[in-house]
Amino acid sequence: MEFLKVDSLDSAREKMLLRVKDRLVSKESVPLLESLGRIAAKDVLAVEDIPSFRRSTVDGFAVLSGDTAAAGESMPVFLTVKGRVEMGQPATISITSGECVEVPTGGMLPKGADAVVMCEYTEEFGPDGIAVSQSAAYGENVVLTGEDAKAGALILPRGKKILPQDIGALASSGVACVCVYTSPRVTVLSTGDELVSLKQNTKPGQIRDINTYALASLAKKHGFCVVSTEVLPDDEAALEQAVKSAMERSEIVIVSGGSSKGKKDMTRKVFDKLSLSGVYTHGIAIKPGKPTILGYDEAYGTLMAGLPGHPVSAMIVFELVLGWLLREATGSQGPPAVPARLSCNAPSSPGKLTCWPCKLIYDADGYTAEPVFGKSGLITTLTQADGYFVTARDTEGLKTGELVMVHLF
Amino acid sequence: MEFLKVDSLDSAREKMLLRVKDRLVSKESVPLLESLGRIAAKDVLAVEDIPSFRRSTVDGFAVLSGDTAAAGESMPVFLTVKGRVEMGQPATISITSGECVEVPTGGMLPKGADAVVMCEYTEEFGPDGIAVSQSAAYGENVVLTGEDAKAGALILPRGKKILPQDIGALASSGVACVCVYTSPRVTVLSTGDELVSLKQNTKPGQIRDINTYALASLAKKHGFCVVSTEVLPDDEAALEQAVKSAMERSEIVIVSGGSSKGKKDMTRKVFDKLSLSGVYTHGIAIKPGKPTILGYDEAYGTLMAGLPGHPVSAMIVFELVLGWLLREATGSQGPPAVPARLSCNAPSSPGKLTCWPCKLIYDADGYTAEPVFGKSGLITTLTQADGYFVTARDTEGLKTGELVMVHLF
Repeated sequence: MEFLKVDSLDSAREKMLLRVKDRLVSKESVPLLESLGRIAAKDVLAVEDIPSFRRSTVDGFAVLSGDTAAAGESMPVFLTVKGRVEMGQPATISITSGECVEVPTGGMLPKGADAVVMCEYTEEFGPDGIAVSQSAAYGENVVLTGEDAKAGALILPRGKKILPQDIGALASSGVACVCVYTSPRVTVLSTGDELVSLKQNTKPGQIRDINTYALASLAKKHGFCVVSTEVLPDDEAALEQAVKSAMERSEIVIVSGGSSKGKKDMTRKVFDKLSLSGVYTHGIAIKPGKPTILGYDEAYGTLMAGLPGHPVSAMIVFELVLGWLLREATGSQGPPAVPARLSCNAPSSPGKLTCWPCKLIYDADGYTAEPVFGKSGLITTLTQADGYFVTARDTEGLKTGELVMVHLF
Repeated sequence: MEFLKVDSLDSAREKMLLRVKDRLVSKESVPLLESLGRIAAKDVLAVEDIPSFRRSTVDGFAVLSGDTAAAGESMPVFLTVKGRVEMGQPATISITSGECVEVPTGGMLPKGADAVVMCEYTEEFGPDGIAVSQSAAYGENVVLTGEDAKAGALILPRGKKILPQDIGALASSGVACVCVYTSPRVTVLSTGDELVSLKQNTKPGQIRDINTYALASLAKKHGFCVVSTEVLPDDEAALEQAVKSAMERSEIVIVSGGSSKGKKDMTRKVFDKLSLSGVYTHGIAIKPGKPTILGYDEAYGTLMAGLPGHPVSAMIVFELVLGWLLREATGSQGPPAVPARLSCNAPSSPGKLTCWPCKLIYDADGYTAEPVFGKSGLITTLTQADGYFVTARDTEGLKTGELVMVHLF
């Protein structure tokens, strides 16, 4: 019986990060609207106060708040209307006590004014006057200069996944292009004599290739750029040729191969041959996903990842290893995990971190996490799951009712 | 003081759905890899058993489990090796008691075999025999025919947002194209004399347009297809022309206009003029977002949505009204909301459902939801928030420590 010298997940991640370092991503500038969902590669500061002038938040009259202090329905205050501020125009009139200026929502406050009375609380009074029936406190219905963001304030931190509101904030500050991290290029190679492509009919003993589709989609979802996918037979020369060619145009080459011993040896041999320093991780103490191989070629700056052939194992290793790497390299975070109570015991495996695909069921008591059981080759284990949680290695695992954090798919 | 006859959110949604009905989306077929993130428009059933034959999950020997029942390290069982199954080839040999066949991981089980012994628990014994040192239970290390999905089983339900694992499951079933809902076409018009485009410098009284950027990005994030965006002055003829032209190529025309009374009247007038049955909702009892206008034109099949000019209000109305509509029309669901404890009181507004942008803070006790306070014009209220929760109308609101469900941005 052969034991692989396996790395813990933490150690495999650390070794990978040490090698890949800053070479996984670079920076590029994209037009504002194309930055949605990308990761900010630089802090963006407001170049000017937003807004750059005091604005009214209502249709009404700009006043000196002190003038209105005594105003009430039975005892209105009378003010002289000095004019009107037009939208998009500077407020050229200034006011002093006893005076006011009409302003539209979004209009600029005139000098002297410190509050706005909504027009609902005013009535025309005489040719150029109004009666105010409610007091306005200092600053009421006014957005101050720089109240949204002061010049120099951080409006987009490095590492943030850019949301529509970030794009709005950048637009308000006049930012037309955003510096984001590049999407690392990925090639997915799926090996196996038993694999046939989607267009072919399967014969007895053959199955359709899943991994080029599943892994390419997963890579895309995580923000990688998939440059090519290929299904290969179990042939060392063909694999070597395909990996070599992929290294020229990819930061990551994934080989998902059958999990049988001979095939794994072949992947390792090819990685060792094509990379300067060879394979540095052979086996990770995770379940599923143990037969994972990682190597790095310094010359091309390419990470080589040999993932299990079982689609579920391959996808989980992608999540835990390559998804993690991209977040680490860009300083970004995944979406918040959802807390849920376990519907049954989840015993941990000796020596291995275990990843549990699960359903999330919501009721009055909150979420329940219900593990989806299935052999690791069964893709439907994942299609039925909403996410996954993990149990640490060398623990007793978790018991029914304990809280787990579910990472959503 | 003028009161608008406002709809409740539920009533505005119901009236909208009644009009838009099945005309918001249609169905289209896309290649498998392009279906990621789209919404399935039809149930997809497995056309054949997956897998279509019994497969080994390990490298080992296919056996009759009964033969191995007594096997142990000190008392091995001896079996005759009848041959080997090759990957991707049918298993042509059949076995009976006392016999076995070598199978690789993923290989087809021969007739007669009902379990696989891992090669780690076997040793060569003589020219064509092995010694088995551990018993294998019936079905051990075997994936049965149809165990992943039986022919006719549902592998992708209508309304599901397609994930990488769904693409994997579809690939395994030989599905090369997927029927998904079309992305409704949206035009975003932002009106205001005070608005200048990103490329211009602002003069006193002017601000940069936020809403074409923020709403177009939000629409894209929700799965709409943004066909065009435009910034317009407050001019009725220009608005009418722009809306009319947008109706020809959009299922939804959004006009985000200043929230001042005169502007709202203009939007309403244009909607009334250009749609057969006119505006049916003028004002929704939500905070922020009350001055929302909805109309529908049966001839073009276009929904007209007048959103507030304040970016935060406009985005929240988009989430609560248009985002909801697309999910309803496609039978899809948003991601699960995250339960969190309130960090402070959240009093509800009389007569209005209130939407609270909030941060999610995680500690040992789980998540805390911390409302981000700010006037509705301030886009940074949203950039600081991770999501939002709502308080129902005509309630007392929620108190510190109460549980809220946070919908993530």
